[in-house]
Amino acid sequence: MKKHNFGAGPCILPQEVYTKASQAILDFDNSGLSILEISHRSDAFVDVMENARSLALELLGLENKGYQALFLQGGASFQFVMVAYNLLENKAGYLNTGRWAGNAIKEARNFGEVLELGTSVDKNFNYIPEVKSIDDRLDYIHYTSNNTIAGTQMQSFPKGKAPLVVDMSSDIYSREIDYSQFDLIYAGAQKNIGPAGATLVIIKENILGKVSRAIPSMMDYQVLIDKESMFNTPSVFSIYTSMLNLEWLKKQGGVPAIAKLNKAKADLLYAEIDRNPLFEANVNSKNVRSMMNVTFQIKNKELENKFTTLSQEAGVHGIKGHRSVGGYRASLYNALPISSVEVLVSVMRELEKIS
Amino acid sequence: MKKHNFGAGPCILPQEVYTKASQAILDFDNSGLSILEISHRSDAFVDVMENARSLALELLGLENKGYQALFLQGGASFQFVMVAYNLLENKAGYLNTGRWAGNAIKEARNFGEVLELGTSVDKNFNYIPEVKSIDDRLDYIHYTSNNTIAGTQMQSFPKGKAPLVVDMSSDIYSREIDYSQFDLIYAGAQKNIGPAGATLVIIKENILGKVSRAIPSMMDYQVLIDKESMFNTPSVFSIYTSMLNLEWLKKQGGVPAIAKLNKAKADLLYAEIDRNPLFEANVNSKNVRSMMNVTFQIKNKELENKFTTLSQEAGVHGIKGHRSVGGYRASLYNALPISSVEVLVSVMRELEKIS
Repeated sequence: MKKHNFGAGPCILPQEVYTKASQAILDFDNSGLSILEISHRSDAFVDVMENARSLALELLGLENKGYQALFLQGGASFQFVMVAYNLLENKAGYLNTGRWAGNAIKEARNFGEVLELGTSVDKNFNYIPEVKSIDDRLDYIHYTSNNTIAGTQMQSFPKGKAPLVVDMSSDIYSREIDYSQFDLIYAGAQKNIGPAGATLVIIKENILGKVSRAIPSMMDYQVLIDKESMFNTPSVFSIYTSMLNLEWLKKQGGVPAIAKLNKAKADLLYAEIDRNPLFEANVNSKNVRSMMNVTFQIKNKELENKFTTLSQEAGVHGIKGHRSVGGYRASLYNALPISSVEVLVSVMRELEKIS
Repeated sequence: MKKHNFGAGPCILPQEVYTKASQAILDFDNSGLSILEISHRSDAFVDVMENARSLALELLGLENKGYQALFLQGGASFQFVMVAYNLLENKAGYLNTGRWAGNAIKEARNFGEVLELGTSVDKNFNYIPEVKSIDDRLDYIHYTSNNTIAGTQMQSFPKGKAPLVVDMSSDIYSREIDYSQFDLIYAGAQKNIGPAGATLVIIKENILGKVSRAIPSMMDYQVLIDKESMFNTPSVFSIYTSMLNLEWLKKQGGVPAIAKLNKAKADLLYAEIDRNPLFEANVNSKNVRSMMNVTFQIKNKELENKFTTLSQEAGVHGIKGHRSVGGYRASLYNALPISSVEVLVSVMRELEKIS
């Protein structure tokens, strides 16, 4: 039985993507070769890479606006390092909204001064702190748009004079916002882009070239742009599958269509959490509740085992909360159908009925 | 028709690996989930990672000898940076045997002094230079064991007092040597390990902790070892498929068995190149000819088009030489069956017959 996969990432991808990726491993595009054995310099793969890079921009409305899209390796965690290596000369401002924001700050401190623009650490990151003022002399401002562990999501991104850098690992392609307000967007692929092993970086070239340190080639955005995201052998299969997934998203009607569906899924689940007396949401302020990662608790911990059993019987998978917050986390990424959310809601109602 | 894939990498993998990897995308191990959507923290994937790390050492005879195996991202090119970041305090010695060795030297120079222990640049790298003496005060010595572009391969690895670091991207698991002479071995996966997107690093822990610079977490071997190769989301599919490929190798009888087969393949092809009056090998010294990448030319360039046509008709794929040397390169990685080499040899004989 195919499970209802609410996992926080690597996460569910569309069935159509699995089918095509599985077939390409046996025979890629009737070439007589597996996608796993083709040269990354072959015309066929260069086409895949160009298509993936182009879709990555087009779906965010960023084509022909001075942005470059790169498919790299190492995940968002490696971008914590690369961003600072390429952009941090003196001082950067970071908003500390959770575990990943904190890790980004830690890595940046190897390269320069980090000013915390705000933090919600006092309440285990269950709100988005206000940014009161932004120093004009910052090299850049860094935000984490969605916090997978706490289940919060930023709705607006206060801007100063400095370039805006955003880690959108867990909500890129999920919602309609003005993506052109950012100068650099990065995201590990393994949520709404594709399988683990690829990292998307979207960058405005004009923010580069302003630090004095020598940058290793593999970590130099300008080198990677000049080499058209093929400085060395890329993660071929992950990029191919990301391309399939972005093609799928385009066929669904792109970000506007999927955003509507994502809102419907989140509304359905939050409504049940708020209505059902057995449950409570981790995040009280409704306007910063994440549409991607819905975090909640069972008030009476003695009911947890029963909830686990009912969930498993219904094929609900991956709702255990992160160990640092406990409880539950249902991730509602793009490929999760609303029918899966309906199943989860029915399990919550069943628990209410028998308790 | 399945092609005879002599590509230099990403390269052919065993058919059995394609079949299993393709199936795991539809349903991983009867879990009701695709391998692309499972959590890297799930028991199932932790088992995959541990099995892959353990096989990686076992097949080289390095288990229980103080080595750790890591599956990272970024390819050998990123290891050019990480090796220097982690080990280069003052001065390191590099043998310059080709394009990739040269790139390793270039990246290391960002972090300290590099002493060239020798170079074969004068003859387009078609021989292995002699290492005359090794400074006792080097932080480490770096070799490239096999040069995919030139088609040379080192048979012995001169040792001094410093740790020995070797880039074995294109010949690890292909031949019987004493792997324990090395303190750090690295290799991009996409030849004899698995698909592109994973990088294997095998390292003796006791060489770490000797540089004074701060190392970003994602680039710190000690951190990556402590996190059991899961500091952040790894390249799940590439590691799973690498595990399948290492399991396949073990079933074939491991490195000793595959090394015999590789020698038979290389002997067959070099014998034809040496015998057939139309062809000549790029590398004259037989003792440094690569068993993995056989580079050769057609003496009369006018016959090249005919050779290309005959090759294509026979399903021979990927034998075009690297643009920096021209001619031909037939890569004979572990998964290439000897029957493919027989087909290539028959094409060479056919060309001789009709010319």
